[in-house]
Amino acid sequence: MAELFAAVEVIAAKRDKHELSNEQIDWVVDAYTRGVVADEQMSALLMAILLNGMNSREISRWTDAMINSGERMEWSALDRPTVDKHSTGGVGDKITLPLAPLVAACGAAVPQLSGRGLGHTGGTLDKLESIPGWRASLSNAEMLKVLQDTGAVICAAGAGLAPADKKLYALRDVTATVEAIPLIASSIMSKKIAEGTGALVLDVKTGSGAFMSDPERARQLARTMVELGTRAGVKTLALVTAMDVPLGRTAGNALEVRESVEVLAGGGPADIVELTVILAREMLQAAGVKATLDPADALKNGQAMDHWRRMISAQGGNPDAPLPVATENHEVVAESDGELIAMDAMKVGVAAWRLGAGRSRQGEKVQAGAGIDMHAKPGEMVKAGQKIFTLHTDESDRFERALEALEGAVRISNTGEKVERLPLIVDRIEG
Amino acid sequence: MAELFAAVEVIAAKRDKHELSNEQIDWVVDAYTRGVVADEQMSALLMAILLNGMNSREISRWTDAMINSGERMEWSALDRPTVDKHSTGGVGDKITLPLAPLVAACGAAVPQLSGRGLGHTGGTLDKLESIPGWRASLSNAEMLKVLQDTGAVICAAGAGLAPADKKLYALRDVTATVEAIPLIASSIMSKKIAEGTGALVLDVKTGSGAFMSDPERARQLARTMVELGTRAGVKTLALVTAMDVPLGRTAGNALEVRESVEVLAGGGPADIVELTVILAREMLQAAGVKATLDPADALKNGQAMDHWRRMISAQGGNPDAPLPVATENHEVVAESDGELIAMDAMKVGVAAWRLGAGRSRQGEKVQAGAGIDMHAKPGEMVKAGQKIFTLHTDESDRFERALEALEGAVRISNTGEKVERLPLIVDRIEG
Repeated sequence: MAELFAAVEVIAAKRDKHELSNEQIDWVVDAYTRGVVADEQMSALLMAILLNGMNSREISRWTDAMINSGERMEWSALDRPTVDKHSTGGVGDKITLPLAPLVAACGAAVPQLSGRGLGHTGGTLDKLESIPGWRASLSNAEMLKVLQDTGAVICAAGAGLAPADKKLYALRDVTATVEAIPLIASSIMSKKIAEGTGALVLDVKTGSGAFMSDPERARQLARTMVELGTRAGVKTLALVTAMDVPLGRTAGNALEVRESVEVLAGGGPADIVELTVILAREMLQAAGVKATLDPADALKNGQAMDHWRRMISAQGGNPDAPLPVATENHEVVAESDGELIAMDAMKVGVAAWRLGAGRSRQGEKVQAGAGIDMHAKPGEMVKAGQKIFTLHTDESDRFERALEALEGAVRISNTGEKVERLPLIVDRIEG
Repeated sequence: MAELFAAVEVIAAKRDKHELSNEQIDWVVDAYTRGVVADEQMSALLMAILLNGMNSREISRWTDAMINSGERMEWSALDRPTVDKHSTGGVGDKITLPLAPLVAACGAAVPQLSGRGLGHTGGTLDKLESIPGWRASLSNAEMLKVLQDTGAVICAAGAGLAPADKKLYALRDVTATVEAIPLIASSIMSKKIAEGTGALVLDVKTGSGAFMSDPERARQLARTMVELGTRAGVKTLALVTAMDVPLGRTAGNALEVRESVEVLAGGGPADIVELTVILAREMLQAAGVKATLDPADALKNGQAMDHWRRMISAQGGNPDAPLPVATENHEVVAESDGELIAMDAMKVGVAAWRLGAGRSRQGEKVQAGAGIDMHAKPGEMVKAGQKIFTLHTDESDRFERALEALEGAVRISNTGEKVERLPLIVDRIEG
């Protein structure tokens, strides 16, 4: 079959700062998925896109081309509106775990296709897989059944969903072409649009522990994604939220499940509760659900916990089974008296990763019990010798490099210096 | 073996406009040659280099790394100095053919490793291969023997010479990363330095038919290459010369051999003779040869022709054998009376390529007899109906697309409009 274009012409066009036509974008994404455009050609194009950009028409078309490379799910069999949340990833960001059953308890359905972690940020599936018996892979029919029965499902995207994105993501990972807003936005949104959700709330993280540490870049990513969702007929809005300090008091798979269950039991750290409730209200509003139950109340009265237990059980998990605990631990204590004025999210994230909670490449195993307990957070007074962190791992030779990562992660001051940190909600961006 | 760097870090550094360290450059070129850095990683790095550039230290180190990927030839066994010429490629640019034996006749040795054509510019080896019996592949020992016996050798670079460049060139060709000055300069100079020539004259073409149509870019490429040669201890200078109009009156393999032989017989087109003599004088001066014989005289008195015949014979060619002639031809005539004021080199080059004189991808065969005879050149008066071009090919279905390429290639004016063209020598750049 004669191909519509030569790959080298499409690459040269973007190299020379021209706009790609709709036909060029459709062809190059499809031809790459079919293997006609080679990896080395696509990576050159991706670098040209990273350095020369794409306009909103190009990004939208690129996203559509990735969606069209696979199936598009739909949930018309459900008796209530669907809404999902996506976070760009952070340290200690376990929000999805209490949030999905909470929103289900308040009347919307949450069909969440989620991912595994890479690098210093954790992955929702890795966290849930620390629950004995729970499984991430469901068929489309199983996914619908869990959603009908429990109101929420969190599972892995199947091979049929945006295969172009899967192939592109693996390529970007090894060619330093991950960090381009058009590519990040189209990757996330192609999966979320193909997933078939009716509404979507994006949690775009900013600060040291976030992918987009610069708030202005985070806003730009948020705006790009909101525009993509809106163009595709998905009611989409984004919150830009703080990731300068880890969320909550745990980072690590089973540790974060434990903390999520505390939140679902009406307790848990204030920042997790606050962000969960804010996101739940946004999701319900985006879905058009006239909530008779406020999310804050659903956490207190056990209804969110009921939905959690049903959701976990429906995917084979035992919500009552003890969570895995790492075999080794190590304490880090305060060196002086004073106020804890800073805790660097990136450093804590890297330390948890090095303890075994995260992976360095796709497919690597993670430890369920590894991670970090944070016994103090910015704004709290500490005494010299008081525990700040407990590090957990199954392999004690991991402590050394984790402790190196934690060097300078915490600042304690007794000079009245103020805690400087981002507000929890930095910005809100609507379509 | 643990690798010094991760490829993704080196790519990210250039992506983010940082300088690459010497260690990073040495490693990435070597690791790519060994297959540790994958094609898709190198092509992303090449695109980042194309768009973000390299400074002169980086280019020099990159060139050294490519030289060090293979053998370095040397000619100390010879009793006279070595000097070579390299042209960046043009339409009708057969200068090497008369030039190498001419310079040999005047007392220097010319060890030229040459290439095949790609696209609209011809390749010296393709031209010589139209001579019955002549072969381009010689062992190093054969190359030395031809050089000792005849004073000049033109042959293909062996697999041991700058293998990194061979692998990179093939990659650049399919990833739209050919047109970066650091990559062009390092590719050419790595081969010329590894070839072991003591002095080098570069003929950097500019104008429509040249790779660098913009004179300022051509100057920049010339300066970059002169600096690379000088740093490597090779006496290097560059002429920037005109390629707005084809050189001479033929474009095509056997056609250009015929014209070269005319020049060696003391005749031939004035522009070819002039450029050949100028380059020969520069080469002899760069080699430090106190010439007792001026190149202009050596063309007239048969000494250059003697060297040509010996050089061709030494490589198996029969200098007396009739050259191949294409089976089909087609004439293009002037549409009106007037002065021929323009002849576009690119259009003529593309037409010759389409007739079968050039190739679209590495390894493709070319036709020995295909090409174009130019019966008039800018500055000459023509009459309506007078022949301007004769097109030659073995496949008559090629005429149509060749004629399309020639649309607007020639302008004839009877309003006293002046011929506007570049001077033959646009600039001269020394180390």
